[in-house]
Amino acid sequence: MPITKSQVKYIQSLAHKKFRDAEGVFVVEGPKIVAELLQASNLRPRAVYALPGWIGEQPASLRSALTGINESELERLSALTTPNQVVAVFGKPAFAPPVFDRGVLLALDGIQDPGNLGTIVRLADWFGIAAVVCSPDSADVFNSKAIQSTMGSIARVPVCYADPGELIPASGLPVYAAMLEGEGLYGIGRIDRGWIVIGNESKGIRPELQALATHRVTIPRIGRAESLNAAVATGILLSHLVGR
Amino acid sequence: MPITKSQVKYIQSLAHKKFRDAEGVFVVEGPKIVAELLQASNLRPRAVYALPGWIGEQPASLRSALTGINESELERLSALTTPNQVVAVFGKPAFAPPVFDRGVLLALDGIQDPGNLGTIVRLADWFGIAAVVCSPDSADVFNSKAIQSTMGSIARVPVCYADPGELIPASGLPVYAAMLEGEGLYGIGRIDRGWIVIGNESKGIRPELQALATHRVTIPRIGRAESLNAAVATGILLSHLVGR
Repeated sequence: MPITKSQVKYIQSLAHKKFRDAEGVFVVEGPKIVAELLQASNLRPRAVYALPGWIGEQPASLRSALTGINESELERLSALTTPNQVVAVFGKPAFAPPVFDRGVLLALDGIQDPGNLGTIVRLADWFGIAAVVCSPDSADVFNSKAIQSTMGSIARVPVCYADPGELIPASGLPVYAAMLEGEGLYGIGRIDRGWIVIGNESKGIRPELQALATHRVTIPRIGRAESLNAAVATGILLSHLVGR
Repeated sequence: MPITKSQVKYIQSLAHKKFRDAEGVFVVEGPKIVAELLQASNLRPRAVYALPGWIGEQPASLRSALTGINESELERLSALTTPNQVVAVFGKPAFAPPVFDRGVLLALDGIQDPGNLGTIVRLADWFGIAAVVCSPDSADVFNSKAIQSTMGSIARVPVCYADPGELIPASGLPVYAAMLEGEGLYGIGRIDRGWIVIGNESKGIRPELQALATHRVTIPRIGRAESLNAAVATGILLSHLVGR
């Protein structure tokens, strides 16, 4: 049965946050990430449209949830320049409510680039971060570019939108704020509890959150670049403070 | 004088590597990066098209090199979804030929994503890396997305395209290859000479280059992500091996 115009319209509508929020779903594309999310115990596929070749490679237990489409239908459904075998709609992941008074937590203050946000969620997964809190003005982690950049980590890392300015003081945890002028990162030891705060790509951390920092942390510069990419800076902080 | 059709066509042609190579130029957009590149002593602007407001903010000494355009002309010239005040064409940067037998050098083996490549050049600038060598099958650093991601570091870091499989053995330097199965990064001390080798986003480092490694280096994983973004992994390696 060919896909209908209304199915195409529905998928396209999910490019907009308003419709994703109303439906509680997100779209993801490509064989590797879709196969991984289909295995995740806290995610339910709502619709998976795929080329017959890809469907044939999936475990028999999954196949009933998959809809076969042809190349031209794939092109109509896909938001990618180069569609890649499968387009899927998943319900947003369910997590136990995160606990904000222990472990290492990441707070993102107005991260705007969806690719940076997704890459940070992937990093949080690699380093076993307990939860990622995004300020309400941050990019949407269910944006298609962000989801693709998580590479499947969206199923494993609790991401929530809340005001770090409220959660941080309530937690009683130490606060390591990434700033261009602060204490050198390499002088700080490994941590097993606390907030790591990363600011907006151009404006950094807003003053109200800076004021909550117990440590203002700087990655010492050897050369001449003016700043680092936000996801890269997050990786360097997590590696030094948590990974070692 | 309004811009001509042939000027628009020329700028558009530079989206293709073939034409950038033939002309020895690249295109860059946006007020911050263009202003920075205009100050670089090793770069010459060939043409700078900008809104009058932006031109008025530039030093008088530069203004003769700038061409005023209006909003609709900017839209025709720009490759961005949201054009940003200025589109510039620069001749490729001139550097003294890099030396491949001292200092810390970065070799990229088939990095495909232009954003990753540009972010790595920015990182190399931050950590004072002597040169970046890209295997010939890597993305083009003068691609518009790559250039934008360098945030101006393209003027400060020598980037060349050559076979690391030839340069590395000739250098006599130690080789730290980023791999998923290797020696833990945090057990390795600071280095002041050697190659750091980063592989392709999905396939990693090709076997012929792996065979040249004196150290196979792994970023230890705490959580469950399958891998890290290539630029993020480069940042973590540079921070630990060079930054401390």
